Amino acid sequence: MTVQLEPIPGHVPLPSGFRAAGIHCGLKKNGQLDLALLVADQPVEAAAVFTQNKLVGAHIAVCRDHLARSNGLVRAILVNARNANCATGQRGIDDARLCCRQLAERLQCPTEQVLMASTGPIGAPLPTERILNHLDALVAAASSDGAMAFARAIMTTDTYPKAMHVATADGAATGFAKGSGMIHPDMATMLGFVLTDARVGNPASATTALRRIAARSFGRVTVDGDTSPNDTLVLLASGRKQGDALATEGMLTGLCQNLAKRIAADGEGATRLVTVQVRGARTESDATLVGRVIATSPLVKTAVAGRDPNWGRILSAAGRSGIPFTTEAARVWVGKADVYSGGEPHPENEPLAHAHLRDSIEVTLGVDLAEGPASADVWTCDLTKDYVQINADYRS
Amino acid sequence: MTVQLEPIPGHVPLPSGFRAAGIHCGLKKNGQLDLALLVADQPVEAAAVFTQNKLVGAHIAVCRDHLARSNGLVRAILVNARNANCATGQRGIDDARLCCRQLAERLQCPTEQVLMASTGPIGAPLPTERILNHLDALVAAASSDGAMAFARAIMTTDTYPKAMHVATADGAATGFAKGSGMIHPDMATMLGFVLTDARVGNPASATTALRRIAARSFGRVTVDGDTSPNDTLVLLASGRKQGDALATEGMLTGLCQNLAKRIAADGEGATRLVTVQVRGARTESDATLVGRVIATSPLVKTAVAGRDPNWGRILSAAGRSGIPFTTEAARVWVGKADVYSGGEPHPENEPLAHAHLRDSIEVTLGVDLAEGPASADVWTCDLTKDYVQINADYRS
Repeated sequence: MTVQLEPIPGHVPLPSGFRAAGIHCGLKKNGQLDLALLVADQPVEAAAVFTQNKLVGAHIAVCRDHLARSNGLVRAILVNARNANCATGQRGIDDARLCCRQLAERLQCPTEQVLMASTGPIGAPLPTERILNHLDALVAAASSDGAMAFARAIMTTDTYPKAMHVATADGAATGFAKGSGMIHPDMATMLGFVLTDARVGNPASATTALRRIAARSFGRVTVDGDTSPNDTLVLLASGRKQGDALATEGMLTGLCQNLAKRIAADGEGATRLVTVQVRGARTESDATLVGRVIATSPLVKTAVAGRDPNWGRILSAAGRSGIPFTTEAARVWVGKADVYSGGEPHPENEPLAHAHLRDSIEVTLGVDLAEGPASADVWTCDLTKDYVQINADYRS
Repeated sequence: MTVQLEPIPGHVPLPSGFRAAGIHCGLKKNGQLDLALLVADQPVEAAAVFTQNKLVGAHIAVCRDHLARSNGLVRAILVNARNANCATGQRGIDDARLCCRQLAERLQCPTEQVLMASTGPIGAPLPTERILNHLDALVAAASSDGAMAFARAIMTTDTYPKAMHVATADGAATGFAKGSGMIHPDMATMLGFVLTDARVGNPASATTALRRIAARSFGRVTVDGDTSPNDTLVLLASGRKQGDALATEGMLTGLCQNLAKRIAADGEGATRLVTVQVRGARTESDATLVGRVIATSPLVKTAVAGRDPNWGRILSAAGRSGIPFTTEAARVWVGKADVYSGGEPHPENEPLAHAHLRDSIEVTLGVDLAEGPASADVWTCDLTKDYVQINADYRS
């Protein structure tokens, strides 16, 4: 099962100056694409944000080191699926570095201008040989038409590739994401890549901007507390178009929010994309926290699976978030139905709320804390028996 | 499904000076017991801890008020199941107070010496009439043989009554708990009552002791962040036996841990009782936090359901707990099998770990953080498709 949003187009263009590829190198079964490449014609400014987990994949150590040594300039990103190269010790780091070096030789650029990202089950050594043996074919396959092949090659338990293109007067951007095979991005789960020919700023300000963008997009997909050992979001900005940096940030935020919603919609076993709307918070971070607690509550998520407008579970989740509010002043809605306000439930509105959960693929749950002007949306999906099945059997 | 631990005996005695009852007053279907009473021969010292949720059941406001006005002396506790009397506004508080007053009249004690607790779905007005009409029968039924009837009457989605008796040289104690119909105590979920004839201290020190007891027992059952709107734990201590207060605290802690494990074992859809052992933490609160994050991880819990010794999910959950440690120095075990240490997995030990998950009803997952001397155990159960089914259909 999966929630089908507006379909991804069959062809997704890349911004000028970028090429992409996805091929099969033998990590996935049945010839599925599993090795992917993004390459810029020239070194471009890069920014990256990584997992907060104490357990980190080998590629993250290598990426941090390369970005520091290249002053934030990047030519290419190599991605493999089906192996997270995580909890693999020094050998894993050596393997990732070797892959970057051999790709850099083929691109005739310094090793530190190549980044790598790995995703899949953790704990097994990277099948480095298979990757190295296919670098020539990968570089040869890179083209301006390669976006969808790239998007497919980075998939793990995703049911469809996630790629998106936007273009405004300030420039064009193409974004890619994989996940969340696991609904809560806490296991080698999320990779995101954004390419743009627009201007974002110097590497330092681009990183700051990317943190803001991530906080408002991938940071608001249901997060089971925090991020996975391999979570990585990389922005490559060529700056060929000298538009307005703020407008560009807005464009990229919208792009990443679209991809983030697709991650929630493609959550394992999902039958509903759930937007949790938090209003009336004192600060945006308060609103985000309340939204996260609601969006990660198994009771809320199973209620949506059961099409039950269970406002009590929503209010109770908000109540244990640690954010101060007065339950008597709060309001809870499901779709357009006001199900709790003035300190009392409104059972007469529950049929409307039930119909919303039953008939809509994209559903909204909302709470107004009546404490201030700030708001945030957080995205998740329902928790179904299929989620349990998929995750009980993941490694078998 | 449920995990059967050592069976609850058919008869559970009460400490001297206490009586109990459970009858049917019409809240549950099919004549099931739904109204319960604990009564002390004389007013006894009481301590209570309540939910941290911002949303609180009506009975909690009444209990706090009564305990303050009675200087912590209590004669009786009235409990109803199948209605949480929560999110019911001022009317709910008036209803609870009325029940206490009418029971106090029958016991010929001040109203403030009666406490009340409600559990069940939230948002519906308390069927006060049915309760009041059965108070005479309830008081008449109270006896020293009434423990199991009481334990049955406070059940909601529990599959068996939870009552336990212990006796040492310092005195005897009987404890009762209901929950967790919902695995994570975040919805009108947990009630606990402990009666003892031993000495715990004055009301102030008894409350402090009860907080420590709760933190090491019910506070370590898988908690989805925090507590429910109605969570209540009450200790009544007659002090007839003048034993050692510290020894008594130890006895009561063991009693409550046994009941807490039964709550986890009776988690909805559970097939395994999971003990998460955290060792080598800097402080006990660090250890407890790491244990809670592991024990609430859907990925860890579905892996147990799939009998998969997925050490990566355990280590990753610890890694996002916010508690500092070095993953290379950490150790992870499943049962007696060392599955990760020295920065590397040990796949050769996974068959032993798998056999443990497959063959044992009570399983252990452990992590040693190698940071210090502190430890904690946290209890949870696996996450199965039955959990989703039960919670999707809860209100229908």
